[in-house]
Amino acid sequence: MKRFMITSLAFATLLSLGCNKQAGKNASNNESESIFPKGDAGPDENFTGKAWNYGLVTNDSLYNTVVGNVYFEPGARSNWHTHPAGQILIITDGVGYHQIKGQPRQTIRKGAVVKCPPNVEHWHGASPDTGLQQLYIVPNTEKGIVQWLQPVTDQEYNNQ
Amino acid sequence: MKRFMITSLAFATLLSLGCNKQAGKNASNNESESIFPKGDAGPDENFTGKAWNYGLVTNDSLYNTVVGNVYFEPGARSNWHTHPAGQILIITDGVGYHQIKGQPRQTIRKGAVVKCPPNVEHWHGASPDTGLQQLYIVPNTEKGIVQWLQPVTDQEYNNQ
Repeated sequence: MKRFMITSLAFATLLSLGCNKQAGKNASNNESESIFPKGDAGPDENFTGKAWNYGLVTNDSLYNTVVGNVYFEPGARSNWHTHPAGQILIITDGVGYHQIKGQPRQTIRKGAVVKCPPNVEHWHGASPDTGLQQLYIVPNTEKGIVQWLQPVTDQEYNNQ
Repeated sequence: MKRFMITSLAFATLLSLGCNKQAGKNASNNESESIFPKGDAGPDENFTGKAWNYGLVTNDSLYNTVVGNVYFEPGARSNWHTHPAGQILIITDGVGYHQIKGQPRQTIRKGAVVKCPPNVEHWHGASPDTGLQQLYIVPNTEKGIVQWLQPVTDQEYNNQ
């Protein structure tokens, strides 16, 4: 539990790097089109490969909502994790995967919307050949933001 | 108040046209790049000009969050309105305006994030020459979604 809290704090710190109102600048990647700056690399302990986080809305008690953009490089993915109040993903470019524990891996593309229910283990990331641009929305943050779990193995990632 | 409720319901109905998970298709407009289908025109009583709404996340008691995409054609704008729990706008393409009552009109562009505090009168829309693509996030919907007010006059729109 302590490790969860520490890594959650690390993620929240990453999320807090955004600000209220900023002009968009395109990130320099060839795999997909970005609306926002590339941001900062997520910690190795929570991701396999490179996932770049750019915070858009930091947590507060007025909106109780955290919003940000993650760019997963090809082959990159999150660890398994849960959100105490769930999470909504809006895929803005690229191709990737999303999987809820015990369910088939799903391929997600530009325009897809994914709901991750509260306290349900899941992971998301890019496809092997194409990166993934996703906006994440964490609602009702008074219940918590994220609890990080174990890495997604190559077998899980490759759906074997 | 009754009119507010009826028009709010009309808007909520518009919002409910989306579904949980859908592939993105580009809208056929020349003014800006779209990630999502164009959707349906907002009601004339709440908008000046054409604003196209595409619902992404419908309201429920699990996430308490409504998400959608609006494309404002050049010159189009919302009426003045308030959100009981506030609203977050993510500008994904184009150029437009946002104004909180009593404050200067602000120009918003691709990559901008705008927070509209709870119960504060505001409006948003496109610039005269370029359309605006915006994602809207309405959090804490157990407090309500939207209350529509009077149209934005040409003088207000033109910042005169």
